[in-house]
Amino acid sequence: MSADPNLRREIPDATVARLPEYLRTLSRLAEDGVLSVSSEELAAAVGVRSAQLRKDLSHLGSYGVRGVGYEVETLALEISRALGLTEDWPVAIVGMGNLGHALASYSGFVTKGFRIVGLFDDDPALAGQHVVGVPIRPLADLPACQVADPVSIGVIATPARAAQAVCDSLVAVGVTSILNFAPAVLTVPEGVDVRRVDLSTELQILAFHAQRKSLAAGDGDLRSVVSQ
Amino acid sequence: MSADPNLRREIPDATVARLPEYLRTLSRLAEDGVLSVSSEELAAAVGVRSAQLRKDLSHLGSYGVRGVGYEVETLALEISRALGLTEDWPVAIVGMGNLGHALASYSGFVTKGFRIVGLFDDDPALAGQHVVGVPIRPLADLPACQVADPVSIGVIATPARAAQAVCDSLVAVGVTSILNFAPAVLTVPEGVDVRRVDLSTELQILAFHAQRKSLAAGDGDLRSVVSQ
Repeated sequence: MSADPNLRREIPDATVARLPEYLRTLSRLAEDGVLSVSSEELAAAVGVRSAQLRKDLSHLGSYGVRGVGYEVETLALEISRALGLTEDWPVAIVGMGNLGHALASYSGFVTKGFRIVGLFDDDPALAGQHVVGVPIRPLADLPACQVADPVSIGVIATPARAAQAVCDSLVAVGVTSILNFAPAVLTVPEGVDVRRVDLSTELQILAFHAQRKSLAAGDGDLRSVVSQ
Repeated sequence: MSADPNLRREIPDATVARLPEYLRTLSRLAEDGVLSVSSEELAAAVGVRSAQLRKDLSHLGSYGVRGVGYEVETLALEISRALGLTEDWPVAIVGMGNLGHALASYSGFVTKGFRIVGLFDDDPALAGQHVVGVPIRPLADLPACQVADPVSIGVIATPARAAQAVCDSLVAVGVTSILNFAPAVLTVPEGVDVRRVDLSTELQILAFHAQRKSLAAGDGDLRSVVSQ
């Protein structure tokens, strides 16, 4: 057995999915100079129930102090550590169209432990261009790059039809964590994690609330739903 | 009171957040020619427990048929209707850098009830360019455009420093649903919904699982986590 207490502690997937939101809110509080926060305040800022927040944080072994709450910086560090963000995660982006360019320049990608080490696209018009100081190379260069500076996480930002071949290339050089922005379901061998991002999900959730508002407005019962 | 049964039925936020995933999976099944699906199969394809799925769908009044499950097309339509996707949602995107361009061209935005009616950017170099057939205009044209073809949902794809002013402009012309991709927290009046998309959230969740894998590999206990 490993001696790392994080390994032995099981954290439910739903809790893991909320940790980035807690961390984002804590970072904002820290920027504003806030030193400690009650579970009620933090829960309200994130948009979850405080009982849910306390339960989630208890999985990290963080229980706060009665009457004081949580120390903002300490809790942020604990969540960062649980998420693995205190380590170094070399990232490669494949597909340097508009989305790939936007992702390479996205401030949330280059902070928080992620480091872009490779940008790939087979379009000859893009070859040799630099984005955030990293040259765009053809995908055929991936194995050589992998030797020089191994990639931990591959990001697929290609059209759907190219996504599976790109995924196979990433897996072939030993990448076992893949973030897929292409609207395609990928087949991967056991031991490889794929997470798909669908940019329209939040738009659909907004449409739900907009529909409720327009129905409720007919009832004279307009309610505000703010969740950011 | 309204006669619309959807209005009186309260759907928890966590259920609403899962509905787009159910819909995406059902659309894929329909494309593959699948006519009916059991709650176990659908839950496994989405990556939730089947009890959770049945509870979520019961909020829509969908209970399936014992031994048969759910009819794929009927359930997809019920979820679309609950999300409001059977209505027409005119969308404006403000900020036509790489992310704005990527969003305007994103297939998930232009299908599913969303229709791009306005693209705005104050960069003179972009003025008059067309993306997906829609001209890019300066933000000062928003009020006039709003009269011609009113926007329901505004998407902010600007840098963080411009986001609040853009948000204020959208609110001023009556937009009450805003999707914010900028890494900024927006202040809005009551009755306006803001949802923030942080593109690094999924990367952080991947890092969590990658860290688990590398720790577990030391233990000889490599596990696969696939969630797409």
